[in-house]
This record gives sequence, structure tokens and C-alpha cells, in this order.
Amino acid sequence: MHLVVRTLDFAGEITDPIHRYIRFSQAEKDVIDSAAFQRLRRIRQLAGAHLVYPSAQHSRFEHSLGAMHIAGLACESLLGKGYIDNAEVVEELRLAALLHDIGHGPFSHLFEEVLETRSGTSHEEMGRRIITKSEIADALGKNGYSADHISRLSFGQSRVHFLNEIISGGLSADIMDYLPRDSYFTGAEYGKIDYYRLISSYEVASGRLAINRSALNSLESMLISRYEMFKAVYFHKTVRSAEVMLLHSMINADEELGLTDTSLGNYLSITDEATLERLCALDNNNSGMAARLARDYRDRRLLKCVYEKLLHKRDRHKRMDRKALSTLEVEIAQAAGVDRSHVFADASRASSMPLTPSKSEMFSVLVTDKKGVREVPVSEIPLVDSIAGFFDMLRIYTTAESRQKVERSVKKVLGDQETMEMGAGRLHGGSNR
Amino acid sequence: MHLVVRTLDFAGEITDPIHRYIRFSQAEKDVIDSAAFQRLRRIRQLAGAHLVYPSAQHSRFEHSLGAMHIAGLACESLLGKGYIDNAEVVEELRLAALLHDIGHGPFSHLFEEVLETRSGTSHEEMGRRIITKSEIADALGKNGYSADHISRLSFGQSRVHFLNEIISGGLSADIMDYLPRDSYFTGAEYGKIDYYRLISSYEVASGRLAINRSALNSLESMLISRYEMFKAVYFHKTVRSAEVMLLHSMINADEELGLTDTSLGNYLSITDEATLERLCALDNNNSGMAARLARDYRDRRLLKCVYEKLLHKRDRHKRMDRKALSTLEVEIAQAAGVDRSHVFADASRASSMPLTPSKSEMFSVLVTDKKGVREVPVSEIPLVDSIAGFFDMLRIYTTAESRQKVERSVKKVLGDQETMEMGAGRLHGGSNR
Amino acid sequence: MHLVVRTLDFAGEITDPIHRYIRFSQAEKDVIDSAAFQRLRRIRQLAGAHLVYPSAQHSRFEHSLGAMHIAGLACESLLGKGYIDNAEVVEELRLAALLHDIGHGPFSHLFEEVLETRSGTSHEEMGRRIITKSEIADALGKNGYSADHISRLSFGQSRVHFLNEIISGGLSADIMDYLPRDSYFTGAEYGKIDYYRLISSYEVASGRLAINRSALNSLESMLISRYEMFKAVYFHKTVRSAEVMLLHSMINADEELGLTDTSLGNYLSITDEATLERLCALDNNNSGMAARLARDYRDRRLLKCVYEKLLHKRDRHKRMDRKALSTLEVEIAQAAGVDRSHVFADASRASSMPLTPSKSEMFSVLVTDKKGVREVPVSEIPLVDSIAGFFDMLRIYTTAESRQKVERSVKKVLGDQETMEMGAGRLHGGSNR
Amino acid sequence: MHLVVRTLDFAGEITDPIHRYIRFSQAEKDVIDSAAFQRLRRIRQLAGAHLVYPSAQHSRFEHSLGAMHIAGLACESLLGKGYIDNAEVVEELRLAALLHDIGHGPFSHLFEEVLETRSGTSHEEMGRRIITKSEIADALGKNGYSADHISRLSFGQSRVHFLNEIISGGLSADIMDYLPRDSYFTGAEYGKIDYYRLISSYEVASGRLAINRSALNSLESMLISRYEMFKAVYFHKTVRSAEVMLLHSMINADEELGLTDTSLGNYLSITDEATLERLCALDNNNSGMAARLARDYRDRRLLKCVYEKLLHKRDRHKRMDRKALSTLEVEIAQAAGVDRSHVFADASRASSMPLTPSKSEMFSVLVTDKKGVREVPVSEIPLVDSIAGFFDMLRIYTTAESRQKVERSVKKVLGDQETMEMGAGRLHGGSNR
Repeated sequence: MHLVVRTLDFAGEITDPIHRYIRFSQAEKDVIDSAAFQRLRRIRQLAGAHLVYPSAQHSRFEHSLGAMHIAGLACESLLGKGYIDNAEVVEELRLAALLHDIGHGPFSHLFEEVLETRSGTSHEEMGRRIITKSEIADALGKNGYSADHISRLSFGQSRVHFLNEIISGGLSADIMDYLPRDSYFTGAEYGKIDYYRLISSYEVASGRLAINRSALNSLESMLISRYEMFKAVYFHKTVRSAEVMLLHSMINADEELGLTDTSLGNYLSITDEATLERLCALDNNNSGMAARLARDYRDRRLLKCVYEKLLHKRDRHKRMDRKALSTLEVEIAQAAGVDRSHVFADASRASSMPLTPSKSEMFSVLVTDKKGVREVPVSEIPLVDSIAGFFDMLRIYTTAESRQKVERSVKKVLGDQETMEMGAGRLHGGSNR
Repeated sequence: MHLVVRTLDFAGEITDPIHRYIRFSQAEKDVIDSAAFQRLRRIRQLAGAHLVYPSAQHSRFEHSLGAMHIAGLACESLLGKGYIDNAEVVEELRLAALLHDIGHGPFSHLFEEVLETRSGTSHEEMGRRIITKSEIADALGKNGYSADHISRLSFGQSRVHFLNEIISGGLSADIMDYLPRDSYFTGAEYGKIDYYRLISSYEVASGRLAINRSALNSLESMLISRYEMFKAVYFHKTVRSAEVMLLHSMINADEELGLTDTSLGNYLSITDEATLERLCALDNNNSGMAARLARDYRDRRLLKCVYEKLLHKRDRHKRMDRKALSTLEVEIAQAAGVDRSHVFADASRASSMPLTPSKSEMFSVLVTDKKGVREVPVSEIPLVDSIAGFFDMLRIYTTAESRQKVERSVKKVLGDQETMEMGAGRLHGGSNR
Repeated sequence: MHLVVRTLDFAGEITDPIHRYIRFSQAEKDVIDSAAFQRLRRIRQLAGAHLVYPSAQHSRFEHSLGAMHIAGLACESLLGKGYIDNAEVVEELRLAALLHDIGHGPFSHLFEEVLETRSGTSHEEMGRRIITKSEIADALGKNGYSADHISRLSFGQSRVHFLNEIISGGLSADIMDYLPRDSYFTGAEYGKIDYYRLISSYEVASGRLAINRSALNSLESMLISRYEMFKAVYFHKTVRSAEVMLLHSMINADEELGLTDTSLGNYLSITDEATLERLCALDNNNSGMAARLARDYRDRRLLKCVYEKLLHKRDRHKRMDRKALSTLEVEIAQAAGVDRSHVFADASRASSMPLTPSKSEMFSVLVTDKKGVREVPVSEIPLVDSIAGFFDMLRIYTTAESRQKVERSVKKVLGDQETMEMGAGRLHGGSNR
Repeated sequence: MHLVVRTLDFAGEITDPIHRYIRFSQAEKDVIDSAAFQRLRRIRQLAGAHLVYPSAQHSRFEHSLGAMHIAGLACESLLGKGYIDNAEVVEELRLAALLHDIGHGPFSHLFEEVLETRSGTSHEEMGRRIITKSEIADALGKNGYSADHISRLSFGQSRVHFLNEIISGGLSADIMDYLPRDSYFTGAEYGKIDYYRLISSYEVASGRLAINRSALNSLESMLISRYEMFKAVYFHKTVRSAEVMLLHSMINADEELGLTDTSLGNYLSITDEATLERLCALDNNNSGMAARLARDYRDRRLLKCVYEKLLHKRDRHKRMDRKALSTLEVEIAQAAGVDRSHVFADASRASSMPLTPSKSEMFSVLVTDKKGVREVPVSEIPLVDSIAGFFDMLRIYTTAESRQKVERSVKKVLGDQETMEMGAGRLHGGSNR
């Protein structure tokens, strides 16, 4: 037995309920100690989910540390098999994982949609700027790492494809941290995954990340967990009600508050609660619904869902972007005879959803066994295929005072509600506050 | 708020890792204290699974206590809603749950198949006799309960149908105890279920057990858990190898040892280890394979699986009973030119499987909501439908020395192995010892 | 067996990682839905501990729900034994537990010390006013409960002494929720307690809460947990560094910001992050250290501990209040030749500590057994006695630039550091960030 | 950062609820696959504890794997710090840990006392013979390891002292596996320990195992856990009742059954259940109490405890060995006028206790910090000192029919029962079956 041990130059460690202890190096410590990174403590991992799962107060800060930790485990697995052969790559990958969410603004994915809608900028673009232009660049440089290089790794632009896949996607450190973490902090016990087995089954084939066939069970299980978390938390009807309120409040108020001012000075100062304070302090008269939505969110007076419909497979190609949803809102408001600011359309594939297809959907996985490598469509994993169809749903929310009118008119516009007894039932369940 | 509290006349409590504390009444204590019940400590819950999951040493004793506990919770839920209105029924149902496995012989379901094959007796029949004829009858009588009545409840023969369903079946105390328990003791983390929500959603409709629509998510999740436990544990290839050995050893040795002598005196004396000792002590010459299989089981020298095939939907109606499997064994042995005692056919629907359809398969569930009651086919729960097809698999095992011959010949008899890459892969996984 | 079941009129339930599901009645819902109560979501349970245990982001909101839940369990136990005989008392006690922390300001115990120092008001006094004067009074009245009565119960002023003890103190719903909750969210695994056994052992003797002797083990175990959490979290050297910064920042800035303006309008608007924003926005020149401490806290540039000393038993009577600590700070600063605003003295019995003796220290417990009732001094529980002495420690913190000077001079003022090798060591450990 | 990874030549892995996955090498596999090792599956870790904690059915087999796993982690820590520098030592130490309990007979420590009493042989002596003379020697030799060397390591006879300490003692792989394992399987939630921190703090000083001062908290916590497990499980009054029965049955029957025949052929054939079967099958007339005790144990009709007394510190030097206890039994029986076979004396320091001082008591620990190494008496760890005194207790058990007589007379012989209210209370608690 050949047994060589890693020599760790760790500078410290942090207690974490998910991974027990997370160790960090000096370079990592310097990044973590920057104000730009500390700010992640003030951006919740699950924007509005704590209004339904009160203890889901965890932040991007812990998740980022966890992703770094998992990336480190992934590297150990790949080092052991010879796919990586030097410590530099390990440190770079850990730093990239640590920084993969550094570009998030207040309320994470919600602000991302505001940013895209209002300024055409993505959170990745902001991330790149923060890594290369803030004190984080100094922290990296001081320790001998290139901010540009780390930034490319963080946002999927490395030419070594499998490294990108360790950072984000269906087999990534990202998903392997957020599923158990979101499960732990919400109390929705669906997110238990066996990341140990998945990671120790990592292979590289044709430059891409693969898993050994023996881990297919664990992959199936993780995909089911993700599905259950989607239903119970990420796309929970009431969670989305809260989030739709924040989203519209920010979009409406942006002109006045300049939230999407993409200068680093501004961007790094707007965290969840600071933004909410500013939205709540808006003058009622000028800001239209923005102030009201923010205060109602703060005091938990939520919009009501008056309609939900499962989209047919044939409709799936039409992704409901913000513009399409807006058009629909106007149409429904007119039919109901209410102000259009009282109708809110939400789709499971909206970009403010944490798990939309463009980001982390996995369509196939490379599987290795004694005979070689094979690309297995995810749809061949039996349970996973049947899951797919349940991710496509449209919902209409409205204010308390417009409820009756909108409830009546929405069917005219959208047709009868699907009689998807089970499907509907399944998305209602869980905690009812 | 009307708040009346139960007055508990509990005689004591037991520490249990699954339910924390299990309380019991005097009547229950008297049953538990009987030698016939204490004997369940010596019958493992998962006959041979501990050869793959070493810590799965838990017994029918703990499971029986757990089932009683869950039955008690079920009663509280039904009392609260007025479906039950007196404490007698609660105690009867708890006693019935406590005794639902009292008829199990050594190695549980394995002996059941031996019993059926050799004497045409079921474990329920044995259970009835133990409850009504052993000291357990005295314990019940002393406390004012009818052994006949409890026995009927234990084995699904109450005229009040929903009471039977609390004891066994897809929504029962039985499944809600064994899934988390088997998960805990194997270490296969798939069996976490939310029995609290299921039970608190219990309703009764047309005399049958129903659940409120709000618990459909939890039901779906429990059915997925059961599927994952089936793959990872109950029908794990190596677990079944061990169990097939025990099964055949007992069948072969029964003539000589009289294991299936159904007198209570004999039946109550044969526990797992006592039976194994007797099988191992057999004379090699007379007992054919029986002694060898037992000793190989004891020392963990297991049969090898040389073939597995997923049965087509169209073949499902042909349930592979012991006789059909025997015929197949003979055919394969002849083709391979080996002694027929070296070929072992096993099917996922064999009666020695813990979870065969005849016992606990659930085809539909009554669901209530504001609008009324509706019978929902389980197949409408999306993930569950796709699960169903993966329960039908046939495997051929053989001894080390016959391995090559049987491996070659089996394809001639059974056709090419299914190229169910995923299906097959999925049943291989898990722990590899 | 007499078995009557409670009829629950529950209006809903909330998912909680500690208690799984927390049910609530209509009256409780109305209280929870008030803005004054929702505000607790924005006051962290452990003010600055998340700078050491990043995931300790949980809030007073979840803890309040949990305390209500435990109070409900306590009532069930007492109802079962006849010490309570009507449902009104149960609802009142649950409401009182729900509201026991409603008077907390930003950063919980820290603001309490600010409040006491600057305005002589306690958080209980604020709590009373919020319960009786805010919309919470309406919510209670609407449901037929007296705000005055609930308020008395919440803050230990009921004439029925054992009811007060269920709300706060060594056997209370408060401690039984916060220990496991703080443990869960910090990841410091010391706070597991067996509240089930403690609560089911509840008795009432001479109007006071007692426990049955069979639960002494569980009590001992809970007291040990509390001790371990104290060391690992509540009085962790770095946690207190962060908290001392907040404390002094608020005290210094109060004149300018009017934080301790005790009008309800102001009090209900200042939450953790809102207060931090205001502190960070202060003008450097006018606010002295206040702005600097707040920004350093926000970006995690913490004060350094240059001294710690275990107080002798004989010194314990001199409780180090804010005034005594201030005097000490001046003395040390003078000896060091640094500005007095750079020296910070902290004692384990300061009122900004969550667990100071005045609040929840327990000196004896009533124990019942077959022979009767007996008052057992806590010091008779062997491990507990030896714990007591380790709660008394004094620490000196200072800024980075004054570190060397203060480090040198502090010994002159305070004498040599205790050579309590173990004691000191024990308070150093744990997570090192 | 220098990061070299271990190249693992692992042959497989086993699912384990405590350590998730336990990997093993080919050499380890060959040892595990031997019949002599497989036999450990049939020797329960906690002989009779399952009569009080029903799910405590776990065996020496799982514990041995777990100890090997922990020994491996210990080696990684020591390799990283340069105290070990080659893979051979790692494999040897893992093998030694795997085999440290191989010499145990039926009911573990109980048989050890029988063995010592009747034949003067220790379980270590039997272990040495099994390792060097059974097929295990072949398995080791085949893989290039010396059975003699491994055997010395297994039983504390290596000249490299710190290696012995990794196998057994207060900081060993043994204790770090059994505490959490016994806790998990009993359901008594006291045995949670932070072995990660302890192991990663390992140092070697003067050839002995030391820990870094930063782990003193974790050590204190582990020692408290051990104390709580001792009270709740190992020395639980009813657990010991069951074990005293087995002990006396075996001692009485040994003449007839030859249990302590130390030929390997016999020794390797007697497991828990096989031995119990033989004891129960004894002829009542010849075997005196042996058959009765065994059957009563099997059916859980336990001896009654009529007396317990905490020994004074001054009496501690007189260790109550089997002979002293026998003398006491005779004395009490005479005073009571009952047959001496009806009186059973048990002491917490009897050699049939799993945790007696001679085996694993730790009196001091080497602690390193920046200043150097220091030997810290365990008694300086505050809680630990107060624990020590509670390990010394004497109990008298008797049969149901002699209960009254013995209860009356025992006080004459032993003086009044200690009025150690708390002490006594504390050892009564826990599960009451």
C-alpha cells in the first residue's frame, strides 16, 4: 500500500453544522477577511423562504465556505486518481468555489433578475468585477494567485472543462453544499445527499467530469432530493409570494433608489436588510407599489395566489421571461378591471428562481465503468425523467383587495385550471405559513 | 379552545433510538414479558442483511414495540377527529400492532417461505395460534382483552376495515416503523419519513383509512424512501445471496430437522442463531447442500450472482413462485451440466422478500379534501408510477466452483441479459460487502 | 385505561428544525402576525456569535415559537397530573412563552445593557409596554385574553409561582428551547438535552415547580450542556470581543442616535441590521469610537483579548457591573498611557451576557419521590458544583494599535494572570475564527 | 501550500452508521473474511444491555471495524505531523485495531471474568493465540505482515509506546469508537464525542501520545460522555442484573460444559447465543442455578437489586475482586438464612465491567502548547475530578423468592445504605425496563 499524506498548510478552521469543520488556508483567510466577502453574511441564501421556514436565515457566507470545502474534497478525489497533479490547482479551485457567489446582490436570485431586467448585467459579471477590482484582487495577488484566473474558474470559463463542472452544475460543489444546507436550515428534511460517494466516484473523461457507475444510485437520490426541495421550498407557493413582492418592489423602486447602479461602491453596500430598509422608507406617493410591497413583505402580509397551472410539455419551449410575464399581467389586469400593478405572474423558470434550467439543469451525465465511458441522458434514470415535467408551472398572485376580481377573470385569460390533482396537491403541501 | 388531555395509565417506558421513548401499559407489559414475545429479540428484522450492512442486527422485538407506538399515535389522531371514541379500541389496536409479527419464525420472511413451501402454513396462522394458545392469551385475558379479537386485528381480519389498515399496508404503523428503523440500523440513509404529517392527516372515509390531500407530498416521499430501501437493502444483490443460502439450507434440512414442525413448543424455540447452529451441525453427507450453505453463510462465503434480468411488463403477471423458480433452476443446471443443487433462482417477488406485492403493495389511496373523497391510484403520483417497473427482477446465483459453467449456460436459457444500463446499475450500488 | 384526547383547535403549523412542527392556535396566529412580533425575525438570538459560528443566524422569532411549543408540552404534562385543569391556562401560558422575548431590542442582551445603563429601563419593562400597548394587545383582546395578565405571566409576575417557572429559569421552556436551538445553529454539539423526560417528570409542590427524582440525571445532563455552551459559545473569547464592540458602539452613539428612546414607535423600528447601518453611517469625527467599532464589527476586524483572569470565590460577591468595569477600564488605560476608549473590560456576569445569574441561575431544585418533596441544592449534583466556579472570569480587550501598551500595563493593575492552565485552556478552545 | 495526497489501495468499503463508510485494504479484507473474525458478529458489544436498551444488539464486529477506521484517522494525523513516516506502520496499526477485540469470548467482559476466575487466562492472551495460530496468521502472512508483531500492537506490547495508546486507553481508537457507537445503538444520547478535534490535535512527546491544549475542551467533553454512559448504560442497575445472571450461570456451568476450554477449536465456537442455548439446555438438577439463571435471562426474569452503596474514598484501594465478592455473598446469605447461590454481589470495578480502571482509566494526559509539554493530571480537569468518586459502588442482587430475607439482612452485614440521595438517584435513572 502506497500511502502518502497531504501536508496541510491550514491557517484555521470554522465550525459548520453541515461539514463539522471547514479548514482554510492563508490565501483563503485573506479573501474571507475582506469586507466584500464578509458582506455575504448579510445576503440570505434563500431570499424570502424564511417567511415560510422561519429558521432559513442562513447566508451566502456559510454556503460559500461549504462550497470551498466540497471543492477541496473533489480535488482530493481527483488528485488520488491522477487527474490533478499539483497543489496550485487545488488552491485555485477552492478559491474559485469560495468566490462563486461573490457577485450576488440583495436577495440573491431576485436581485439578479432585477439587474438583468434593468441593466442587462449578470451576477457573474458583477462577480468578475468584484474579484478583479476590489480588495479581493489584492488578497489573491498577495498570495500569488491571479484574480483573472480565479474569476474565470469561478464563473465557468476555464478551458479545462471539468474544473468548471466542479464549481457549478449538476455534480458540483455548489449543489452538494446547498441541498443539505437548505435542508438543514429550513427543517425540510429532503436534502440529505451522499456527496461522499459521488465525489469519490469522480472521473474525468474527454476533459469532462464523469462519475463511476457505482454512484448512479447516489446521483438518482440527489436528483430526487433536489426535486423534493424544489417543491417544498424553492418553488413553494407562499415562498414565491414573498419573493415576487421583493422582486416587484425592487424593479419599481430602482429608478428612484438606483439599486442597480453597478459601481462597486454601491453594489457592495446593498445587502438584504439595508435594501429592505430603503424600500420601506420610500414615499408612498411616488413609489407606487414599491413601498407597499416592501412593508407588506417586512410585516408578512403576503400576496394571494389565485391561480396555478402546469404547463404542457409542448409549451415548455416558450420560456416565460420577465417580458412575457409582464404582458400576461397586463392582460389579466385588464380583464379583471384592476390596476396592472396588482397582478403578479410567476413561473418556475423565471430567472429569479434559484434553480432554473439555464443555470444548473443537467441533461446528461458521463458514466464510466469497466467497459468505458458512456453519456447517459438523465432521462434514462427512471425517477428523474418523471420529475422533469413537474418543474413547469405558472402562478398568478394578487393583492388582497383585488383578489375576487382577479380570481374570476384569470380563467378567461388562461383557460381552466389544470385538473392535475396530484401535481397541484404536491405543490401546496409542506408548511402552511 | 377545548383542551382535554389523555389520562395515561402507563406502566413504564423503553428507550428507543427511533421514537426516543416508547411507553407501555400494564397489559402491554404483560404481553412483552412473556417468553413468546421475548423470543422476538432473537429474530433479526432483516434476516441476512447484516452480512452487507453489519450493524443491521436489530430484531423484530424493537420493531414490534415501535409499531405499537405508531399505532398509538394513529389512534390519537383518529380520536381527535372522532373516528374512534373509546380507549378500549386504542389499547386493542396497540396490542394488535405489538403482536403483528409474533408469528415470525427464524429469519422472518425466509422461514415464511419455508413454512409455506413445506407445510402450507403462513406466519399469520402461526401468529394466531401463538396469540390465542400461548401464555400471551393469558396475559391478554388477565387484563380483560380477548385473544381472539386481538388476533383478528393483528392479521387484518377486523370487520372495521380502517383498523386493519393501521396495522398493515401502505399507510400502516408497520411501514412507518420499519422504514426509519431499517434505515437507522443499516446506515443506508434513505428511510427518513415524515410519519407525523401522514398520521396527523389520517381520515376515515367509507370505513377505510384515508389521508388528507395536504399529506400527499409526505406519502410520495415515503414511497420513494421505500423504493430506495428496496434497492439499497431489501433486494440488494449480496443481501439476497446470503438470504437465498439460508432459504435453501432450511428447505433442504427441514426433513431431517423438522424445523417446520408447527407445534408451539417447537416453533417458539427456533430463533435465528439456534436454527443456524443446528443447520451448521448437520452431517455433511446426509444433508446435501444444507450444511454447506449454512456454514458458508455463517462464515460469509457467499454465492455469486451470475445473471440478472429485469422482467418485462408483459411478464409481470407470471409471478415467479417457488415452484416456477425450481423449474428454472433445474433447466439452467442441466444446460450448464452441474448438479441442480448448485443453481439458485431468486425473484424480487418471491415470498421470502420482505416487501412483495401480495403483502404491502398499495395500488391506490383515499384522499380527502374540501371537495370530498377521491380514490387516487398510486400510479398518479408521478414518481411512484415510474418506480413500479423496477421491482421486477430475476437473478441467478451459483456456487464458486460452478460459476463459470453456469455463467455461460444461463444466457441460453434466459436470453441475453437486459441492457438496462441504469436499472442494473442501480441495483448493484450501495455497500459492496 | 382512561384515555381522553385533547381536542385541538389549531389554526396552522410551522416547520422547525428543532421541534419538527410547531402548531399554533388562532390567538397565537394573531399575535405572530403582528408587525411587532414579526420584527423578532430581525433580532438574532445570539447577537455577535455568528462572527465565530457563521451559521448562528437564527432569530428571537424562532426561539419564541419554540418556547411556546415547549410551554405547551409542559402544560400537557401538568394537565395529565391535575396541576392544571383548564384549557384557558394552557393558552395563556403558551401566549406568555411566545411573548417572553418581545421586549428585546437590537442584539438582545447587549441592548438590554445599553438600555439599563442609559435609561434605567429593562427589556421586561419594554416587553410589558409592547404587550399592553401595541397591536399585540388588540390581538390578545380580540381572542378574549387580557394583555395585562399575559404580560404578568411573560415576565414572572404571576402569583401562581410554578407558572412563572415554566416561562423562565432553570427548568423553563426558555432554556429547553435555547440550548438545543443554539447548539443546532452554531454547530457546537453540546446543547442536546432530554426535555421530554424533564417535562414529563414535572410536579408541583407548595406552589412551585418540582421534578421527579427519576429526572435528576436529565437535569444534571442539561446543566452540563449549559456549561459547555457557555464555554464554547456564549462566553467564547472572540464572540465576546464582537459583542463588546457592539455594546460600546451603542453606548457611545446613543446620545446622537437616540437608540434608547423608549417610545414604542422608535423601539419597534430598531432591529439588528437597521441599528448597525445607523452606527456605521455615523460621522467619524463626532461619534468617537462608535462608528469605528461598528464598521470594524461589520467587516469583522475584532478587538484583541490581552488578558483574562478567573475570579476567586471570595471575589464573587462583587458583581462587576457596568460602572465597576468602566472604572477598571479607566485605570488600565491610564496605566497604559492610551485613550480610555481603547480599553474594554468584560465580565462573565455582565448584564449583556445571555446567562447571568440574576436571570437564570438555579440554586436549588425541588425533587419529589415516593417519600415526599425535598429541596436539593444544585451544588449537591456533583458535576454541577464544580461547574459553578468557572463562570467567573474577567477579560480585557483592546484595539490593535493599543495592544502592546495595554498588554504590558494590564498586569500591573490586575496582578498576574491566573495560572489556571485548564480553566484558561478550556475557554480558549472551540472554533478559532 | 504543499499538498500531496495519499494513494489509497483500498479493496472495498462497508456502510456504517457511525463513520458512514469504512474502507479496507486487501490485507484487512483477508482478516475480516476469516471465520475467526466473522465470529465477532455473534458477540454483542454490550453483553446484556439489550435487555434494558432493546436495540443495543450491535456486535464486536462493527466496533472492530470502527476502531480500525479511527486508528487510520489517527495515523493520518500523525503522518501529517511527521511522527509516523511510512505506510507500513499505518497498515500495522489499522490491523492491530481491527484485531484488538478478537480474543473476546461470549458476552465479552463477562466471559473474561469467567476465564480469569476459572482458568487464569485473559482475553488478551486468547487474542494473541488467535492472531498467531488461527487462519488470521495466514491472512496476515500472505499480505506480508508478521502476526507476532500485530499481536503485540493489538495488546499494548509495542515498544513504541504511543502506538499502544492509539489502540487502547483514554485517547484511543477503542474509546472513540465505542462511545458514539454504544450511544447510537442504545439510544442513550450521551456518547456524542468530537473525535475529529481530538485526533487532529494528536502530538507525540517523549514517545507518548499527547494532545494539543486546544483539544482539552473536547477531552473534557469526552470524559463526561463516558461518565454519562457509565451511569446510563454500562453500570445501569438492571443491565448489571442481567449480566450478573450470565456471569454466575457461566461460572457455575463451566465444570460441566467446559466453556473455558481454551483450545482454539472450542473457543472460536462459543458465541453469545450458542452459549446461551447450551446453558439453557442444562439439566436443572445437576447444574444448580446455572440453568435457571440462563433461562431467566433468556426470558427476562431478572434478579432484584436489594441494596446499593457508594464506597468511601478510603475504601477504594480495596478493589472488590471476584473472591472478595464471593466472601461477601456467603456472609449475606448466611445472615439472611438463604442458600448462598441466591445472593449476588456486584461492584463497579469488577472485571466483568467494560470500563474498569485497570483497563482504560486515564489518570493524566500529556498536553502540548507553545511553551512545551506538560503532564496534566486528569483531576485538574474540573468536571472530571468530581466524576471519579461516583464510579465506586457496590450492589447486592437476589432472586425473587429470597428478596425479603436478603433485603432485611443485608443492612446488618453492610451497614446502612448510603444516604447519597443524588448519587443513588443518578444511578437509578434512565430507561426503566
